[in-house]
Amino acid sequence: MEDTLFFKKVAVIGVGLIGGSLAIVLRQKGLAGSITGIGRGLSNLQTAKRLGVVDDYTQDIAEGVRDADLIIVATPVLKISETVRKAVPFLKQGAIITDAGSVKKAVIDEVEPLMPEGVHFIPGHPIAGTEHSGVEAAFPELYVNRVCILTPTDKTDTWALDIVKRVWEAAGSRVVMMNPVTHDKILAAVSHLPHMIAYTLVNTVADVEKTGVDALSFSAGGFKDFTRIASSSPEMWSDICSMNRDSIVKMIEAFQRRLEGLKRLIQDSDLKGVKEDFERAKKVRDSLPERTSVNNKVSEDK
Amino acid sequence: MEDTLFFKKVAVIGVGLIGGSLAIVLRQKGLAGSITGIGRGLSNLQTAKRLGVVDDYTQDIAEGVRDADLIIVATPVLKISETVRKAVPFLKQGAIITDAGSVKKAVIDEVEPLMPEGVHFIPGHPIAGTEHSGVEAAFPELYVNRVCILTPTDKTDTWALDIVKRVWEAAGSRVVMMNPVTHDKILAAVSHLPHMIAYTLVNTVADVEKTGVDALSFSAGGFKDFTRIASSSPEMWSDICSMNRDSIVKMIEAFQRRLEGLKRLIQDSDLKGVKEDFERAKKVRDSLPERTSVNNKVSEDK
Repeated sequence: MEDTLFFKKVAVIGVGLIGGSLAIVLRQKGLAGSITGIGRGLSNLQTAKRLGVVDDYTQDIAEGVRDADLIIVATPVLKISETVRKAVPFLKQGAIITDAGSVKKAVIDEVEPLMPEGVHFIPGHPIAGTEHSGVEAAFPELYVNRVCILTPTDKTDTWALDIVKRVWEAAGSRVVMMNPVTHDKILAAVSHLPHMIAYTLVNTVADVEKTGVDALSFSAGGFKDFTRIASSSPEMWSDICSMNRDSIVKMIEAFQRRLEGLKRLIQDSDLKGVKEDFERAKKVRDSLPERTSVNNKVSEDK
Repeated sequence: MEDTLFFKKVAVIGVGLIGGSLAIVLRQKGLAGSITGIGRGLSNLQTAKRLGVVDDYTQDIAEGVRDADLIIVATPVLKISETVRKAVPFLKQGAIITDAGSVKKAVIDEVEPLMPEGVHFIPGHPIAGTEHSGVEAAFPELYVNRVCILTPTDKTDTWALDIVKRVWEAAGSRVVMMNPVTHDKILAAVSHLPHMIAYTLVNTVADVEKTGVDALSFSAGGFKDFTRIASSSPEMWSDICSMNRDSIVKMIEAFQRRLEGLKRLIQDSDLKGVKEDFERAKKVRDSLPERTSVNNKVSEDK
C-alpha cells in the first residue's frame, strides 16, 4: 500500500503560471498543510495570497524554504541553480526539491553537486504552459492530460522520485521517465527548433516590408496561426538557447541541410523531388498522435 | 447606376472546394441562369450535380464552355494555361474567363497570349481554402471576410475586371487590386515560405527518429499545431513551387540568412543578441492585424 501523499509545508519559488498552477493543485487535492510562495516581485506574491494560491509569502528564500518538505523551483530556467544554491543551506533533512525547467542536462549538472546528504533533487519538466504568465494566469487544469518528464540520474533517490511522480500524477499528468540528454534532444526537436523557426520566419517576412512590399497586411489567418509561438517570451527563449545550446544548434543545422536540399530541388525545377519531399512530410504529419503532451497552448478546456 | 450582375450561363472548370464554393454563391445570390461543371473526374461531377452545386456537367471542355458568359478556371495552378488553351476556341465573344490560381505572374504570361479579341481574362486569387478538397468540401461562406486579389495587367479589360470584382464581393470578399509580381512576392513570403518551412521541419524531426530517439511521440499539441500546414496537398504545393520558383527561392534564401545569423548568436552564447532577435519578432507578431485574409484554415463559422 502506498503512503498517503501529504506535505506539511510546501515552498513554491516562482509563483507564476507553472508554480502557481501546481500550488493550486496541491491545495485542491489536500496534499499540502501550508504553501509558502517565494519570489522577487512583491505584488505578484500579494496577488498569489489574495487568490488563495499560497497561504503566506516571503521574498527571503532562507525564510521561505525553512521546514519545507517539498520545494518547487519554478523560476526561469537560467535562475534555477542560483536559486537552489541560496536555498540549500536552509533545507531540512529529507526535503525534496524539484524543478520545472525546460532544459534538463545543464540544470542537473549545476544543481546536483549542490545537494547536501539527505536532501533530494528531482529534475522535472511538465510539458505545459500558455502564452500568459504570472500567478493570475495559473489554473489547476493546466497539467491535466499533459506529459511531465522526470529525468533521474544515477544519483537520484528513488523514494523521492516516486513522490514527485505522484505529485504530477495527482495534477493529472502522465509521468515519463527519461535520460536528461534524451529529454534535451527531444525538446530541441519538437519545441526549441520550432520556436527558432517561428521567430526567424517573422523576422524574414518583416524584412520584406523594408523593400516596400506590404506583405504583413496579408499575414492574417494562416501566417498568424503559424507564427503564434513567435509571441512567446524572448527572455525565456534566449535562456533556453543558452541552456540547451548544443542540441538546438544541432537541430538548426539538421533543418538547414534539409531546407538547402529542398531549395535546390525547387531551383532545379525537380518537381518530382519536391513532391516526394512534401509527401514524406505529409505522411509523418498525418500520422502524429492526437494531442497528449507537448504543448505551449492554453488547454482547450480553460 | 450599376448594371445588374447576372450571367446566363456560368462554366466552372474544376468543381472542387474553390470552384464549387463559388458556384454555390452564384446560385444562392441568383447571379447565374445555369451553371455547368467541367472536370475530369466523373464521380466528382456527379456529386456536384447531386448536391445542386451545378445544373449539369460534362467532361468535354468544348461542350461545357460553349455560350458561357463567365468561365471560372479552378483547376490546379499548373493546369490553368492548358485548360484555357483547350477552352479558347469555343468561347463566345464577350466571355469573361477568370482563374483562382495561387501564383499569378506565370499564369498570366501563359494565358494572356492565348486570349482572342473580345474574350477577357481576369487573373484572380481568392485567399481562402481549407485542408479539405473536392466538391463535398465546398460551402458558400468560404469567401466571407476573406481577401480576393485581382492582378490586372495593361492588357486587362476594365469592364470585365469590374464584373469579376463584383462577383467576389458578392461572395463576401474584400477585393484588392495588385501587380502580379507583387502578389507573387507577398504570397511567397506569407504563404509559400511557411509551407516550405513546415514541410522541412516535419522532415527534420522525422530524421531524429532514425537516430533512435522517439521525438515524435512528444510531438502532440504545439508541434502538431505548428506543422498543420505540412498536411497540405503535396501536388498543389509542388505545382506552386514550380510556378513561383524565383520568389520562393529568394524567400528561402532570405530565411536561410536570418537562421544562420540566429544560429551564430546561439553558438557564440550571445544571449543579448538572441533575445533582441526574438524581441524583434515578437513585436512584429504581436502587431499583426486580426484575421482578415490569408488563411488556409477552414473559416471558424463553418
